[in-house]
Amino acid sequence: MRIEGRHYRTIWLDGEAVAVIDQTRLPFRFVVRRLTSRDEAVEAIRTMVVRGAPLIGVTAAYGLALALREDPSDAGLAEAVRVLNATRPTAVNLAWALARMRETLAPLPPAARHRAAWQAAAALADEDVAACEAIGEHGAALIAGAHARTGRPVNVLTHCNAGWLATVDWGTALAPIYKAHDAGVPVHVWVDETRPRCQGAALSAFELHAHGVPHTVIADNAGGHLMQHDRVDLCLVGSDRTTATGDVANKIGTYLKALAAHDNGVPFYVALPGSTVDWSLADGVREIPIEERSATEVTHVTGLGDDGTVRTVAVASPGSPAANPAFDVTPARLVTGLVTERGIAPATREGLLGLFPERRLGSAA
Amino acid sequence: MRIEGRHYRTIWLDGEAVAVIDQTRLPFRFVVRRLTSRDEAVEAIRTMVVRGAPLIGVTAAYGLALALREDPSDAGLAEAVRVLNATRPTAVNLAWALARMRETLAPLPPAARHRAAWQAAAALADEDVAACEAIGEHGAALIAGAHARTGRPVNVLTHCNAGWLATVDWGTALAPIYKAHDAGVPVHVWVDETRPRCQGAALSAFELHAHGVPHTVIADNAGGHLMQHDRVDLCLVGSDRTTATGDVANKIGTYLKALAAHDNGVPFYVALPGSTVDWSLADGVREIPIEERSATEVTHVTGLGDDGTVRTVAVASPGSPAANPAFDVTPARLVTGLVTERGIAPATREGLLGLFPERRLGSAA
Repeated sequence: MRIEGRHYRTIWLDGEAVAVIDQTRLPFRFVVRRLTSRDEAVEAIRTMVVRGAPLIGVTAAYGLALALREDPSDAGLAEAVRVLNATRPTAVNLAWALARMRETLAPLPPAARHRAAWQAAAALADEDVAACEAIGEHGAALIAGAHARTGRPVNVLTHCNAGWLATVDWGTALAPIYKAHDAGVPVHVWVDETRPRCQGAALSAFELHAHGVPHTVIADNAGGHLMQHDRVDLCLVGSDRTTATGDVANKIGTYLKALAAHDNGVPFYVALPGSTVDWSLADGVREIPIEERSATEVTHVTGLGDDGTVRTVAVASPGSPAANPAFDVTPARLVTGLVTERGIAPATREGLLGLFPERRLGSAA
Repeated sequence: MRIEGRHYRTIWLDGEAVAVIDQTRLPFRFVVRRLTSRDEAVEAIRTMVVRGAPLIGVTAAYGLALALREDPSDAGLAEAVRVLNATRPTAVNLAWALARMRETLAPLPPAARHRAAWQAAAALADEDVAACEAIGEHGAALIAGAHARTGRPVNVLTHCNAGWLATVDWGTALAPIYKAHDAGVPVHVWVDETRPRCQGAALSAFELHAHGVPHTVIADNAGGHLMQHDRVDLCLVGSDRTTATGDVANKIGTYLKALAAHDNGVPFYVALPGSTVDWSLADGVREIPIEERSATEVTHVTGLGDDGTVRTVAVASPGSPAANPAFDVTPARLVTGLVTERGIAPATREGLLGLFPERRLGSAA
């Protein structure tokens, strides 16, 4: 996507290093970070310099390439996969990307692994771009359909950032919005600020503003009220892990919006590449591990001061503890449909298998 | 309630002035403001130096007394009621308190009004304290009952601040928690931070910490996840206006928590004095006016910097607009019960009339 007229992906090669946009500095600073070692890639994922399930997967793949430059042995490969896998617990794309890289690299002689790893990581990045663009095309039809029905601009509510910054390019939940907007369908986005880290207010708003898509930032608390008053036509969010039955783990608070959508008859769609499906799981609430992050993300807020300095301020009463679960699970019964690179399916096992029939044998095995 | 060992109400007389705790400065500064004129009272309500439906009502009553010191004529009385009534649109206690004051004062000769107004305002304040304490006693039985059933500490989730800072003393939603805690029932409170103004993280956490009640601040997004995992036994919130049919207007985001409670079989109680019931309304979503506040409350956050300075920082991407509806309406079907000073009733017209039978004739008229 474009920032001030220049096309960017979120991750690219820069000589012998991997370059990424530092998402902890957005929206107030645009800073590119160079990752030159496995440990720098680990740190970038863990501290959310890069975030978003698809981008985490691709960054881990590049991190593995960096690791194999240092140690391409069997032990080095195994250790790098282990360390990268442990950076974040909820997004399944991380494990998926690393498993795919290992399948490709393990059979090769160690001396050939480093070069092959760069190629495999680049292929993964290109696949992500293609998948997200296809998600955009399929999802844009939903927005165009809503516009055709109402004749009004389509109000889409989104939570967190599942835009191009969460992927290599295009995004998942925001890709349909970009495609619809570019095709001339009038669309306006309600952007949940998405406490505690405010990826909506900071990243989705930044993206939409840069692309010229009309949008309004709201407190996470506001979406139910807007739906009660017919001011939301469609909800569109991303996913960090989706069960084979269609339960969706996504940023904390997604479940509350799905409940409100259900209560008000608003369609609730989840956009995700097939790599986000964890075919081994059937019950998302019980089985998907939920990352617990630092309490200071809740008690403190970082933003831009009047003086142009980025500052962190305490918002909670001093002495009060906080808890910070980072994701929740929306049961499939609340999901209208899953928007994937292969089309839109009901949030059911049969729906998903209809799009990914190659998994049918595996699930029966 | 007590702050560092000293008993406070939120509003009291200080010579010829009305003293209030400046709630825009909490939790980082404890500042008492003196209101010496009608316009200072108006400004204190409008800028949320005082907030919370019951406290708004009492402050307006004292504001009327200040106004009548300047002009006790019929015109002065009418104008003061009009100006004070226009400060906040959602809380009905404001209109209720002013109507009651006018009924008392209008029949009196102008020369007698000023003195009578002080007495009537003080009576209103004392009534509020008594009502909140009674709400506390009735609601504490719910918490004690949950403890008796489970044998575990009772986890109560609350939204916004309906504590003693929202009233003259005790609070509405927090009064049962104080009463239960003081009676030795083990209770732990999940405190929704309550964006955009963070009255939960700033005020409820401050109150609970000062009183020694175990609590944990959470992002507003987290409550549904906690309920899915059986970590909430009871929701308890306040109300700014309740219809005769039991629909409840409260701080934006309350509706989302009620949906999650309903989806997970968690009891959802609303605590309110009878003065919060608007007997003229039957459909809260359609009929209760919802205040739209400044977008900067969403785009900016105020807190305490490292250097001990209270600062405001931007959190949203520059150039992105924001919307800020301050309240939402929870339909009665999602409310387990209404906890009032006269006992607990179902959130229905018959339930409310059972507790307030004097309204039965009025509603049939």
